[in-house]
Amino acid sequence: MASPAPPVAVIMGSQSDWSTMRHSTDTLDALGVGYDARIVSAHRTPERMVDFAKSARERGVKVIIAGAGGAAHLPGMTAALTTLPVFGVPVESRALSGQDSLLSIVQMPAGVPVGTLAIGRAGAVNAALLAASVLALSDDALAARLAEWRAEQSAAVAEHPVRDE
Amino acid sequence: MASPAPPVAVIMGSQSDWSTMRHSTDTLDALGVGYDARIVSAHRTPERMVDFAKSARERGVKVIIAGAGGAAHLPGMTAALTTLPVFGVPVESRALSGQDSLLSIVQMPAGVPVGTLAIGRAGAVNAALLAASVLALSDDALAARLAEWRAEQSAAVAEHPVRDE
Amino acid sequence: MASPAPPVAVIMGSQSDWSTMRHSTDTLDALGVGYDARIVSAHRTPERMVDFAKSARERGVKVIIAGAGGAAHLPGMTAALTTLPVFGVPVESRALSGQDSLLSIVQMPAGVPVGTLAIGRAGAVNAALLAASVLALSDDALAARLAEWRAEQSAAVAEHPVRDE
Amino acid sequence: MASPAPPVAVIMGSQSDWSTMRHSTDTLDALGVGYDARIVSAHRTPERMVDFAKSARERGVKVIIAGAGGAAHLPGMTAALTTLPVFGVPVESRALSGQDSLLSIVQMPAGVPVGTLAIGRAGAVNAALLAASVLALSDDALAARLAEWRAEQSAAVAEHPVRDE
Amino acid sequence: MASPAPPVAVIMGSQSDWSTMRHSTDTLDALGVGYDARIVSAHRTPERMVDFAKSARERGVKVIIAGAGGAAHLPGMTAALTTLPVFGVPVESRALSGQDSLLSIVQMPAGVPVGTLAIGRAGAVNAALLAASVLALSDDALAARLAEWRAEQSAAVAEHPVRDE
Amino acid sequence: MASPAPPVAVIMGSQSDWSTMRHSTDTLDALGVGYDARIVSAHRTPERMVDFAKSARERGVKVIIAGAGGAAHLPGMTAALTTLPVFGVPVESRALSGQDSLLSIVQMPAGVPVGTLAIGRAGAVNAALLAASVLALSDDALAARLAEWRAEQSAAVAEHPVRDE
Amino acid sequence: MASPAPPVAVIMGSQSDWSTMRHSTDTLDALGVGYDARIVSAHRTPERMVDFAKSARERGVKVIIAGAGGAAHLPGMTAALTTLPVFGVPVESRALSGQDSLLSIVQMPAGVPVGTLAIGRAGAVNAALLAASVLALSDDALAARLAEWRAEQSAAVAEHPVRDE
Amino acid sequence: MASPAPPVAVIMGSQSDWSTMRHSTDTLDALGVGYDARIVSAHRTPERMVDFAKSARERGVKVIIAGAGGAAHLPGMTAALTTLPVFGVPVESRALSGQDSLLSIVQMPAGVPVGTLAIGRAGAVNAALLAASVLALSDDALAARLAEWRAEQSAAVAEHPVRDE
Repeated sequence: MASPAPPVAVIMGSQSDWSTMRHSTDTLDALGVGYDARIVSAHRTPERMVDFAKSARERGVKVIIAGAGGAAHLPGMTAALTTLPVFGVPVESRALSGQDSLLSIVQMPAGVPVGTLAIGRAGAVNAALLAASVLALSDDALAARLAEWRAEQSAAVAEHPVRDE
Repeated sequence: MASPAPPVAVIMGSQSDWSTMRHSTDTLDALGVGYDARIVSAHRTPERMVDFAKSARERGVKVIIAGAGGAAHLPGMTAALTTLPVFGVPVESRALSGQDSLLSIVQMPAGVPVGTLAIGRAGAVNAALLAASVLALSDDALAARLAEWRAEQSAAVAEHPVRDE
Repeated sequence: MASPAPPVAVIMGSQSDWSTMRHSTDTLDALGVGYDARIVSAHRTPERMVDFAKSARERGVKVIIAGAGGAAHLPGMTAALTTLPVFGVPVESRALSGQDSLLSIVQMPAGVPVGTLAIGRAGAVNAALLAASVLALSDDALAARLAEWRAEQSAAVAEHPVRDE
Repeated sequence: MASPAPPVAVIMGSQSDWSTMRHSTDTLDALGVGYDARIVSAHRTPERMVDFAKSARERGVKVIIAGAGGAAHLPGMTAALTTLPVFGVPVESRALSGQDSLLSIVQMPAGVPVGTLAIGRAGAVNAALLAASVLALSDDALAARLAEWRAEQSAAVAEHPVRDE
Repeated sequence: MASPAPPVAVIMGSQSDWSTMRHSTDTLDALGVGYDARIVSAHRTPERMVDFAKSARERGVKVIIAGAGGAAHLPGMTAALTTLPVFGVPVESRALSGQDSLLSIVQMPAGVPVGTLAIGRAGAVNAALLAASVLALSDDALAARLAEWRAEQSAAVAEHPVRDE
Repeated sequence: MASPAPPVAVIMGSQSDWSTMRHSTDTLDALGVGYDARIVSAHRTPERMVDFAKSARERGVKVIIAGAGGAAHLPGMTAALTTLPVFGVPVESRALSGQDSLLSIVQMPAGVPVGTLAIGRAGAVNAALLAASVLALSDDALAARLAEWRAEQSAAVAEHPVRDE
Repeated sequence: MASPAPPVAVIMGSQSDWSTMRHSTDTLDALGVGYDARIVSAHRTPERMVDFAKSARERGVKVIIAGAGGAAHLPGMTAALTTLPVFGVPVESRALSGQDSLLSIVQMPAGVPVGTLAIGRAGAVNAALLAASVLALSDDALAARLAEWRAEQSAAVAEHPVRDE
Repeated sequence: MASPAPPVAVIMGSQSDWSTMRHSTDTLDALGVGYDARIVSAHRTPERMVDFAKSARERGVKVIIAGAGGAAHLPGMTAALTTLPVFGVPVESRALSGQDSLLSIVQMPAGVPVGTLAIGRAGAVNAALLAASVLALSDDALAARLAEWRAEQSAAVAEHPVRDE
């Protein structure tokens, strides 16, 4: 850890969250934003989580994206251990379709914020876009790439639905 | 902390949880079970929480009762840091009436259990009864007091409703 | 029933609950905790349930794990008939995905506690871990095995997600 | 209990349910249907419940109305212990407004039916009306009173709302 | 319609409800209870519904079982047009899994009762059992068959789960 | 009924809905749209409802606004009996806050539409605005008044919040 | 855009909504109502949305049908930008089955109405029927076709379910 | 608007949101972060919203906090019109307690992110803290104040609950 960490840390509670959270890293790749992705389980590796969160700022991390499902404590606990911006992605859970994940992440008490995105893939993409928008406040080149990404997205919306039934 | 801790630790996320959690301590009092009640906030004092949970077993704690509301991470994070039995009480939250508290506590992933009780006062009473039932497994006098408490409860159920409208 | 019962009784409302509840017995096997698994239906065999619950303590049972789905009355009714610790597992139901099971188990009135775990497989695993943590309070060897199980679980969390898309 | 029981038994889990369940007895009074109202707690007096339900038919009870709140097990457990028709009234609970009561009562597994009414006062009134409609199948005088009650109800609906703001 | 109608009328809102409601008729067959099954749509054939419900009593119907899904108005509207007992079966809907069906059926206002069963197949079976329990109040042979059916159900519950993983 | 009916019929299930539905008539008054307001209960006066709905078109009604709560069948049943546009207002219910009303009204099956507005007062206001927008398609003066109403509404939005704490 | 627009505009937030919204256009085709279907994304093409909505009336559009899923803002924002009647179709979303779509569309504040239909296919069909009922107020031929469509629908309801198990 | 805008824009849908959103501005005041608070209604002043959002970046705004209730479109629509970071606060709604507000804000589709906070006051406080954490990435003095604020918050957590019953 001699060299500084990439600006975005993408953490997730388990390997099974990767199929969701890879949409965060894919989007960061598309925007040319550096990141480090790792598994940090609030419940199974709580001390790794504490070490990760407490050292993030000094390691050079700027924004943390945290994805978890069910009783999803990783985003909120990370936010409790750092003053960096933390964005949470509720991973879709089996029985409750991510409603438990969403409430466990978004309903944080006053004092410890987690900016929460949508359940599942859309949330993972958007966490990356939101991280980029934060970094772009002091990175004009990134701001330009983000604006271009958004413009391309708008241009890709067809005028009429393709009727291929 | 030279003398051993009482067998039950009752922890809660904030002072505002006390109006709920005092029903745990009232019930423990009624059963003659020793306890220590304190505020341990997962989000505002995460390191106090880590210290508390990691040292609980060696301090002589046998059972932990943890109450919290909203994105309630205290019970689950405590359970992640100890192998003692942890019982969680979802405190009623303002907007969502404790549905967020309940899901944040009960939907723990495989590997880290929290025995969850009902939302609010009933859950607080029952967490104490459950803790007592655990301690009674190796304490015949407590087992007798618990049985008596339950018998009195049954005896107190009137045969007919009081019609005083 | 001359010889004492194993310390854990795993009961379930129907054969269809077995695919969930076998995760309780698998976990107890892994921890070296003895158990007896049987079908006790609150609705179809209510008197078997009464006999089971009322005799459990004298037969030597220490902890009861009860799994049921839908209007899941088995855990709560068992708890009403014994002062042993009862842990409830909400089995995932067809239409409501276990939300009915969860509320039917966890929302017990003050006086009769059921320590409730997560819906489905995770809850079944965790009920076994919680039962083990209770038994470990007076069984140092089990406490050591439980600690080891948890340590292995933590060690099994990889540092980085496997990226195999 | 030498004389036969009245045709309707109105049972409830606790004194606190009376403010709801008295709407059942008020309605039975209005229809001239005999009843006995008593407190039978599934959780605090499970054996009273077993005795009550198993003896109901031979004591002459025809229909059972059971009201309960939260993890409401009384209607379903009663239905498990008798083949008499059982109608359940979900009493409004504090935190979850009776959603837990409703699901705990209505989501019974195949084999043990509970005819469930609406949450709260409306359900209590309707349980009485439904009981009356059952008894009226073999009681023409009651059928006539029930028809009259319904006709009066229809006649009481004003043509236009009273505008008194 | 010269000959009297069978005692149970099983109605449903559409052909698509048949896969659920056939569990009502299968159960009535098993209990030897006569019935007539037909499609009566509250929304697409409202006048057929009015005619059906208003004439049911004089045609000799004793109990009506009504199944419907989504904004399920058939059970409640039928109950509004007759004083016969009406039992409602919420059919599982696509998007909301029958939660809409359940609330549309069970939350009837005071004055017009529908005894509501569980969502889906279990509810359809139980509506038939409940109808049989009502008819059995004045039919000892049916009462005996119903008791036998329940006894067989209880006897069919195995002592232990079949472990065939 | 010799003279033609006003263009809008505002119906509601009971007097208790008036405190909500008067916001419909107040809004129609403000827009200068004629209406007739009456109580038509799907459950307590089903035949009045049938007569009302079937005759509405020939009486000159153009749009129907129907408000109801709980298992709210009035809007959907009215729509089943006419091809006029029907707009439904879910009235806030006691236990479930109008969630039952909303689902009972909006989840209509294909073939019988009800345009559903928000729960409570906002929905009542908006049903009137929507009715006016329909009538305005062939009434330029009303279209102008509606546009003016909307413009005034926009103009009434202050630039900054009034800070009077 | 020299020639006037067809009377109905069917808009949707993305190509993926087409599989739902084609049921609107199929129904309009069946009723002989002209329409234009296009993709207008509130979030990805907000300015296209503004232009579309603000110009709709002058282009000759009479009724707008808008379908969207998740945080579905298209119907409400369109309604904010026109005084034409807007009917909203909640498209079924992945994680929450359209509950988010429904609430995002139906819970509009007082002042800006969206007549909301059911989640998914049924809602799309019904939006078209509702649009037709509005246009039929000043088009007797369409009124006749709509009445015929409804009559055929009623006639297609079989008397008895097809029993082909 | 000759001088640059303050770094944070706090917008809300109506005056009634101020009692919630003032907790955002109070927190920004405590942290010494400049802001401008104004009412921008997505539904009643859509063009003001478009102008506001499109010009925000060039006016010097860095972060936007948007609060709204019910079918809350303001945060998402603002995010659609700028690439600045947007944080959404679901304001508690009357009937659904902010569940509609939450889903309308958080469930944004991939491509347009809104970092969503908790329902009500806690969310408003946390939106301010999150905005400050973003601005602190390039403002060391603010970073220090934010760290101090958090440290004071932690220090304010008492060791034991005040027992004043």
